[in-house]
Amino acid sequence: MSTNTLAIGLEGIAVAETDLSLVDGTNGLLVYRGHWARDLAIHHTFEEVAHLLWYGHLPSEQELADLQEKLKANRELPAHVKGIIDLIPADVDMMSVLRTAVSALGTPAHAWPPSLEQVIGLTAKLPTIVAHRYARLEGREPLGPRADLNHTANYLYMLKGTEPNPAHVRALDAYLILTQEHGMNASTFSGRVVSSTQSDLISAITAAIGALKGPLHGGAPSEVTEMIEAIGTKENAEPWLRAKLESGGRLMGFGHRVYKTIDPRATALRVVASELSADDPWFDLATHVEKVGLKLLEEYKPNRKLNTNVEFFAAAVMRAVGLDDSLFTPTFAVSRVVGWSAHVLEQASNNRIIRPQSNYIGSMPE
Amino acid sequence: MSTNTLAIGLEGIAVAETDLSLVDGTNGLLVYRGHWARDLAIHHTFEEVAHLLWYGHLPSEQELADLQEKLKANRELPAHVKGIIDLIPADVDMMSVLRTAVSALGTPAHAWPPSLEQVIGLTAKLPTIVAHRYARLEGREPLGPRADLNHTANYLYMLKGTEPNPAHVRALDAYLILTQEHGMNASTFSGRVVSSTQSDLISAITAAIGALKGPLHGGAPSEVTEMIEAIGTKENAEPWLRAKLESGGRLMGFGHRVYKTIDPRATALRVVASELSADDPWFDLATHVEKVGLKLLEEYKPNRKLNTNVEFFAAAVMRAVGLDDSLFTPTFAVSRVVGWSAHVLEQASNNRIIRPQSNYIGSMPE
Repeated sequence: MSTNTLAIGLEGIAVAETDLSLVDGTNGLLVYRGHWARDLAIHHTFEEVAHLLWYGHLPSEQELADLQEKLKANRELPAHVKGIIDLIPADVDMMSVLRTAVSALGTPAHAWPPSLEQVIGLTAKLPTIVAHRYARLEGREPLGPRADLNHTANYLYMLKGTEPNPAHVRALDAYLILTQEHGMNASTFSGRVVSSTQSDLISAITAAIGALKGPLHGGAPSEVTEMIEAIGTKENAEPWLRAKLESGGRLMGFGHRVYKTIDPRATALRVVASELSADDPWFDLATHVEKVGLKLLEEYKPNRKLNTNVEFFAAAVMRAVGLDDSLFTPTFAVSRVVGWSAHVLEQASNNRIIRPQSNYIGSMPE
Repeated sequence: MSTNTLAIGLEGIAVAETDLSLVDGTNGLLVYRGHWARDLAIHHTFEEVAHLLWYGHLPSEQELADLQEKLKANRELPAHVKGIIDLIPADVDMMSVLRTAVSALGTPAHAWPPSLEQVIGLTAKLPTIVAHRYARLEGREPLGPRADLNHTANYLYMLKGTEPNPAHVRALDAYLILTQEHGMNASTFSGRVVSSTQSDLISAITAAIGALKGPLHGGAPSEVTEMIEAIGTKENAEPWLRAKLESGGRLMGFGHRVYKTIDPRATALRVVASELSADDPWFDLATHVEKVGLKLLEEYKPNRKLNTNVEFFAAAVMRAVGLDDSLFTPTFAVSRVVGWSAHVLEQASNNRIIRPQSNYIGSMPE
């Protein structure tokens, strides 16, 4: 009856041509608009890479100053959004709070088409939402944003309530850059589907947050930190990991659905991380666990090419800079909003409604 | 570089096999789980058809009583959700309010996997959200739901604050039944994409509401009512419509992207509507405008097969039962949540992440 091509899961179907990123899992490559993501993470800042994704080129000094100023000017939450966050029961998870708070930012000023102004205004506010809620959960009065700090430093400051350590800022910045964008994943795609109906940016990003909340996408980051904590000491790494593999268990933070070779984000984070590890015992343990894990995977599963994935170093960086597991996926959203919104802008620039089919396999009326 | 099949817009790609509905635009057919939608609209109620979509069969008397009881028991909004609705500025559109309020319903009780309990609880609350907000905008104290009224009657009661007219309930019920489900449209699809990450029902429905908000999907219903109001009297219908067509204009409420012949939902609504039109002058005018519109389209565009679409009668029904244009798309959400949630349940029953590709057309690093 149907002449549709059945493609459940849409594997191997490209739904867009994009200038934004190349994810080449076979060769372990990640490109943001003509630049290696790993180089961007090592040599540039959150704001510079956001500028690249939004405007198409790395900023001049003046362009960077302008963008930083706009982001700083947009960090404060409207009073009603703070009130809404505070009304949400304490047992509701942070991703649900973020989804509701972002949705609550929607006003007539956010009408289609999406604009760079809207995108900057929204990106500036995500850290404030997360930090506001986190402070409330900790029983602290939320700190306002600090205009003398850049995006990542201000996020760390608002979360922890203390002057941010520059090495921590640098490591977190690299992590945020490396997760700003990653091709047509499920959250980005859901944002583009919503946007393709000419709905507003807020609706698209609200949808994307909802998709990232799912463990098949946003991951289960605590599994890596739990593993490293269970290992506890460098001496225990080899016996612990060997026992795990002997019993048929999986090592957390190794292997990736897309990357069949090294995950380029892990490579970059390892470089940045090495600067931290000298003075951080937890990070030092994590890098030792990685080394032993790779050695043992080569021994036990020589043909599987199981390399360290971004989640391993993400968990390590998050823990090293003092953010707990509950902040892992929300922090992912704080960076990925840059890519989501770049995709929404790209979708709107040449829009066509994304409207697939389904094949009916039920019965027909008599 | 890429071996992906490029399918921008995903036309002709089926992303799922479904038991829920068949939308056959070529032949003008709409089937819900083995039943003609038009027959369901004429002979059954909102709750019966929701039962069909959720459980797979029309309910027995006992099953219907059980479902009605569960829906009634779940209508009341948690206090924090009412507080959140009241904090949203008055100039924010109803679809944005609905998106935020539904998102705010998310609690740990809504964790994956989606369940019939969650689906019933959510469907019961959408009318209460819309009516609560609508009352506030009108400066009235929101009315609580009334347990002696069924779903549609209670919705009308809460919106208007008066005893619902049985003929109005019947017409609105038919409209709600006919829009409960419609294959893999953009909002349903966005809900399935979100759900495919194993995110929760609330995230999926929040995304779907955001997609329905877009005018390419949810439509611009006021265009039909504006046209009929501009026509004003039966005598003016032919000259007005003829002048429109002579000047190359489009008649609102005729023609449909999918249905190349009669829209089966329009057929069913016309039947139900005919019962109303005798005592409703506005509806009487609308049916006259339809008749003249069809005659003139045959004369001016004989090969285009432009038939009355569901929006024409939807606008007519909405206006006849006394709901203004601002309630059109939110009321669409109040019915479509049944189909959305049936799709989320179907997706979860045999889940696979929906994760397409994109083709990178930007430059490569040197």
